[in-house]
Order: sequence, then C-alpha cells, then structure tokens
Amino acid sequence: MKLVIIGAVAAGMSAASQARRTDPAAEIIVLEKTQDVSYGACGLPYKLPPGERMEDLQIISAQRFREERNLDVRLGHEVLAIEPAARRVRGRHADGDFVIDYDKLVICTGARVATPPIAGLADLWGRGAYPLKTLADGRTIKASLQANPPQRTLVIGAGYIGLEAVENLREMGCAVTVVEALPEILPWLPATQRQRVLDEAERHGVELLTNTRVEALERSGDAILVRTSAAVLETDLVLVATGVRPESELAAAAGLALGANGAIAVDRYLRTSDEHIYAAGDCADATHAVTGASVWFPLALRANRAGKLAGDNVCGHQRPAPPVLGTAVFKFFGLEIARAGLSAEEATAAGLDTAAAEIVSATRAHYYGGGGRLSVWLLGDRQTRRVIGCCMVGPEAAAHKIDTAATAIHAGMTAEQVYDLDLAYAPPFGPSWSPLLIAASKLAQALD
Amino acid sequence: MKLVIIGAVAAGMSAASQARRTDPAAEIIVLEKTQDVSYGACGLPYKLPPGERMEDLQIISAQRFREERNLDVRLGHEVLAIEPAARRVRGRHADGDFVIDYDKLVICTGARVATPPIAGLADLWGRGAYPLKTLADGRTIKASLQANPPQRTLVIGAGYIGLEAVENLREMGCAVTVVEALPEILPWLPATQRQRVLDEAERHGVELLTNTRVEALERSGDAILVRTSAAVLETDLVLVATGVRPESELAAAAGLALGANGAIAVDRYLRTSDEHIYAAGDCADATHAVTGASVWFPLALRANRAGKLAGDNVCGHQRPAPPVLGTAVFKFFGLEIARAGLSAEEATAAGLDTAAAEIVSATRAHYYGGGGRLSVWLLGDRQTRRVIGCCMVGPEAAAHKIDTAATAIHAGMTAEQVYDLDLAYAPPFGPSWSPLLIAASKLAQALD
Repeated sequence: MKLVIIGAVAAGMSAASQARRTDPAAEIIVLEKTQDVSYGACGLPYKLPPGERMEDLQIISAQRFREERNLDVRLGHEVLAIEPAARRVRGRHADGDFVIDYDKLVICTGARVATPPIAGLADLWGRGAYPLKTLADGRTIKASLQANPPQRTLVIGAGYIGLEAVENLREMGCAVTVVEALPEILPWLPATQRQRVLDEAERHGVELLTNTRVEALERSGDAILVRTSAAVLETDLVLVATGVRPESELAAAAGLALGANGAIAVDRYLRTSDEHIYAAGDCADATHAVTGASVWFPLALRANRAGKLAGDNVCGHQRPAPPVLGTAVFKFFGLEIARAGLSAEEATAAGLDTAAAEIVSATRAHYYGGGGRLSVWLLGDRQTRRVIGCCMVGPEAAAHKIDTAATAIHAGMTAEQVYDLDLAYAPPFGPSWSPLLIAASKLAQALD
Repeated sequence: MKLVIIGAVAAGMSAASQARRTDPAAEIIVLEKTQDVSYGACGLPYKLPPGERMEDLQIISAQRFREERNLDVRLGHEVLAIEPAARRVRGRHADGDFVIDYDKLVICTGARVATPPIAGLADLWGRGAYPLKTLADGRTIKASLQANPPQRTLVIGAGYIGLEAVENLREMGCAVTVVEALPEILPWLPATQRQRVLDEAERHGVELLTNTRVEALERSGDAILVRTSAAVLETDLVLVATGVRPESELAAAAGLALGANGAIAVDRYLRTSDEHIYAAGDCADATHAVTGASVWFPLALRANRAGKLAGDNVCGHQRPAPPVLGTAVFKFFGLEIARAGLSAEEATAAGLDTAAAEIVSATRAHYYGGGGRLSVWLLGDRQTRRVIGCCMVGPEAAAHKIDTAATAIHAGMTAEQVYDLDLAYAPPFGPSWSPLLIAASKLAQALD
C-alpha cells in the first residue's frame, strides 16, 4: 500500500504515525510545504515573551519521524494539484516539480489565516503586520519583537488566539489595542459572561474597540498608522488574528465535495467524496454530536483524533470518527473561558426550541480563602429536556469543569439527570453543591 | 401536617428548609441536641490554624431559620427514643423531658466518631486527645491549641479528615506523627498513586506509621505518652481521626431496618422500614450507581441532597434519591486526591470481573511552564466494557477532572465511549489529548 499524506502538522503526522503502527509494510510519504512538522501551534502566543523559545513548540523532528517511524517525510514539498482519476498528486519543491501516485491519499492541509481586506496590509505583511498561525509565523514575529521591541501593539481580531496574544503582549509590557469588527467579542458567550471578559481586559489596561473595522495600514516612519472605521490609531506592531479558514482549495479544485465553512466534507470514516481520498484535521468537517450537522471546528484534539483515525482507516479499518461538541477553553489573564456544545444562536439556527439558565457560584467553600466566582450558563432543549450547551467563565475550575458538561451533553443527559450527578466536593475546590448542579436545577425549571 | 426532624446540621436543615418551601402551612419542629445548626463540618481542619475562626463555619443561625423560614428549631433537645407505633419521640432538654408526636419524622442524626478502644483515651478526651467531628469539637481543640500551642502532635487515623488536619497542623509549625492501624493509608487508591501521597507526606516532614495500633494514652507531665504496637511515642496533643459510624442507634432501638455499615436502610424515596419515618444524611444508606447495592457514604453533597429530597417527600412528593458513586476529593499539601465509583477491591467484592489501566500525564502542555503530573487510574467491567471506577492524584486538575469520570460512570459509558469524548484543551490546562482520554484508551486495551 502506498499512502501519501499532504501536510505534516497535527493531523498529518497523527495519520502517518497511526498508519505506520497499523501497517508496518506500507510506503508512507508525507509532503509538507514548509520546513516544519508536528509542532504545538496552540502554544504560539505563549512563546512571544522574551525568554520563551518558539522552537520549544516542536514535538518530534522530521528526522526522528524518518528514523524511528520509517516515514518518508519530505519538507519543502508543496502539492499544487490532486488528480483523483489518476490517483496522483503534482507539486513542486526547491529543485523542481514532482508527481507522486498513491493508493490512498490523506489531505491534512489544515487551515490558513483569513487575511482581511485591509489596504496596505500586503506591503506590511511580515514587516510590521504579522499573522500567528504557523511556526514560521512565530519565528518571524519573534525576530521582530527582539529586533525592535514595540511599545504599542495592535491586535486585529478578538478570538481565542487574539486574546491569548493580548495577554502575552501585555505581560511583555506593551500597550495593547484590540480592534474587533463584530459588535461584540466572543459572540457565543452569554452577555454576563462576556462582560467578565471585558472587565478583565479593562483591569489589565487593554484597549478594546468593537464594531470597528480596520480599513488601511500604512508605514509612518518607525510607526504604523491604522485607519479604522472609528479613528486613526498609531502603533508599532500589528498582529492579524482575524481567524482561519479551512485550507480546502486543493480538494475543491480536484472536485471533492465541501461541507460546513467550505471544509472538505468527510463521512464518519474520514473519507471524502472520492473513495481513495481521506481528509482530517482543520481542513475537514465533522459531525456535531447534538445536531448531527456538518460543522467545522479547527481545534487541536479533534485534528489529532481525526488524523489518527484516518491513519487507521486508510489501512482498511472502519473506525468511525466520534461526533464533536466544539469543547474549548482559553486563558485570558486571570480568567478561564470555556464552552461545550451549542450557543443559544446556534441552537436556534438548528431549529431547536431552547431555554437557558445561568448561575454564579463561589469556586471554594465560603469559609475557605481565595478563589472567586464561577459563572455557569447551561442551554437546554425544550423537547428532550437535554442539556445541549454550556459556557463557563471563572478564575479557576472552568477549564476542567467544562469537561463534565461536555460529557453530560455527549451522554444526552437531561437537566434533571445532570442535577442528579454525584460530584466531588471539598472546601478548597468549591461549595458542596457543585456549580454545575445548581445550574442544572435552574435549567430544569426554565425548561418547564 | 406536623413534621419532626431529628438533627439540624446538613441533612436536617436541608430537609426542614425544603419541607417549608413545599408546604408553607406545615408545623416543622427540628430537635437538635447540641447548640449548633447548619455548619460546614468539612471545614473543621481548615479552622485549626491561628487567624482562622471556627465560628466562620456557621452558615445560617437557628434564629434566622426560625425567623426567615418559620422553622421551630429547638436547640439542646436530645431525642432518646422514637416510638413508631405511637408516632412520637421522647427526649430531654435542660429543663426536663419532652414528648412530641408527629405525622412524619425525618431522622438526620448524622454520624458519630468511631472511638477506638485505646486505654486511657477516656481520661484524656477533650483534655489532650480530641475528635474533630462537630463544631463543638472544633471549639474545644481550638481553645486547647490557643491556650497551649503544641510543639508535637499525633494524629490517629489517616483518612480524609486526618490528612486534612495533618496539613493544617504542619502549616501551624507543629511536628506531626500519623499512626494508622491499616497496613496502608487510603486503601482504595492504586499503589502508585498512594506512593505519591506518601512522598508528599515525607516532603512535608510528616512522620507516618502504618500497620501500627495505638494501645494506650497516658498523661506524663505536660506531655502525653502514646503506647503503640510498635513503640512508645511522646506528644503534646492527640487528634482522633479514626473515622465515623452512622448514628443509627435510635433508629435501631425503634426497630427500623439497617443497611450497609449499620446505616438506617431507606428506599429510593428516603423512607425507612416505617412508612411515616424517613432518614437522610450520614445516618442513612444509599444505592450505589454501579452495583445497585446498599452503601454508606458520609459525604456532604449526598447528605444535603438526601435531606432536601426527604423534605419534599414527607410533604407528599415522590422524588427518588439518585444513586451515588462516592465521588470525593481532598487536598493534601500540594496534591489533589480524588475518586469516583468503585475501587478494584470493591468491584471484586461485588462479583465483577474487572481490568484497570493507569497513566501519568502532564497537567499542562509540555512547553507551558509549571504544573506537574496527573495520575489517572480507571477501572472497567469486562462484561459491559463500562468504566466503573476512577482515581486521580495530581498537583492540579484532579479535583475537577474527577467529575468528568463520575459523569461518564453515571452515564454507563464504555471505555471506548469515554475515549471518544470531545474534551477541552488549551496549553495552560493540559495536553491536547486529555489525560482521561489516554487512560480510557489504555483501559479499552486492558479490557480486550
């Protein structure tokens, strides 16, 4: 069996490694257009400060993959076309073009930065305005931060990555302005929880402009002028964190079907509309555990898991990819911000009739020092009384407690069943009635 | 309706408050033999150090229960006999005897200290050797600690309460020796996790003697001589933390059926073998979610929940008490030690054919600073492939992550289903494959 994999980050190397475990005799070629494989992209914001090294994000080198797992990893190999009928890919590398045929192909091209339509951005790209998606991006911005430490920074986009970068830039002592085009940051959060994030930003001296579009960037001496729909700002460095899109152009050009958000459509076995081609990771779609719909969640666990399963399935297994909930968490200064399942808007868009409940609880027993307030928001489906969504914000506990909600949603538990869970208690870790239980009790009432 | 409740701590006041909500017209009498109601008994160890106040454990005063909830709370009223046929209770208070009849009775007598058979203990009880079960116990030992700050302390028993007290005594600067009669501390923990607890004790200078019985205590000047099966020790203060037993003597004398560990047997509606008498909290048994057997778990959430349900059911509702898992956590210096469901021994005793898996994972991404190692142990049932038990030990995350395992056990999830959960990830909070998922994968293999 000759297996070709396009892309060598999370999903790609998971697929290659698993295929090797499953089929020791397979010929496995991994084509990677950059010089990097298998790195922790989620760690990029944390490597911005001085003293942190971008290279620490590398997990296993291409050399080790070659030597220890017998994987033919080819760096600097960019695939330009997939030819499904001929079962081959065409591309180029430094020394010329290549054509490689395959028995099975796995597309793990990931996601790319959604470059916003800002006048002048192209001129400053990598020279004052930086994305933070790949390890190469990380090296570029890191070199700039070291050569010309900025006083003022401006972050375009207030999603996970943008806000993680904001925290790290503030901790480097930079002034930070965040410009977000949407009317609100983190639109999936309930308003009260969003307010806590805004308060945390203010407490840490972050200037946040919502409902504001960046229209043009231009160099002005050592500074950069940022023309927005609201005002003209001046900064020393721009971080472009406007989100990502599935890198599905190769697949689309080859005639493969696309799903949610333009991601490559795959069946439960990670197979595309061509039976010899699989796709996994941020380039591919997934099935939502609550709605059963095609969704696109560019998240690390999902990418790794799908890669691993695709690596099995190209070798003849039939292992289904489990449905997903988009369970996610990020840290923003002293807050943990987490979600699982549907937001109110997503549920309504899916045609569900919902009710929500929200509570605030202490994160420790009232007589035990420290801690703070944990906000728990639960969304329920009126028809089934099931819990279908949860958001948590707090100074501690949220990052781990969200998994309890995710597990209950996966299990299809009703609000009453969640309320009945026997959960852990000790004074340093919460009140005797766990916050999730109190929220479930309130949700049960709201569903009546 | 005339409702009488015996006991005014967690379950008792939960029952009284819920009955008041459910039946605004009921006559509700709560008979409490001590002078304290509704306090956080789990906080007692944390109030030992100077600067901490035992009185901060009080949640709501008897006066407030009387005024705000119209509950006839009678302090210093000890019930001496229940007469089911006549539907009345007899007892005494400072001014004499009392007889009170009832339509419904809820027994919430809690648990009592299991006083070990140690020669000389009675002479030193409250004057050198102290229990730590009630708020009154807390005041007594606190007064002693203040009047005669001990240099050396000795804790008999290495359960939750004993180890929580050890931590607090060490933080007060006392030398601490722990004497445990069993061959091992925390016998429900897998050996590798237990070793971490032992290491933590050693790191904090705690002397721990297992397989050692305390045989006699005697006063020797200002010190206390402790004769054990191994050696004679000398200390300034003895804490008796040898566990608790259900306070079911009144119920047994009245002819009510008993269940696990001698706790009062109740049906799923918290009703005893007498249809007019309910029991809730640490004096009563419960049903295990995995085995369906009668079990006795003196834990705060369970007590509060059962009290609340009994308060509803005496008013005519039929709300079943959910089955329990004994989910629990405690803090021991820098470790969180948590469990849910069955231990290997308990599962074997229940006739189950099991397999176990254990992993150790980082609590943060490898390139993110801090954190430590989280040990996750999972137990599975070979016949159903369900996860039926979990233990976690780590410097962070365990206290909250145990709830995810508890929820999966409640839901009857197989090892494969747990492995398929979509859980949260961000570098400050763990690796992309959550430790529970890795453990579930290993358990699935062990079950094959």
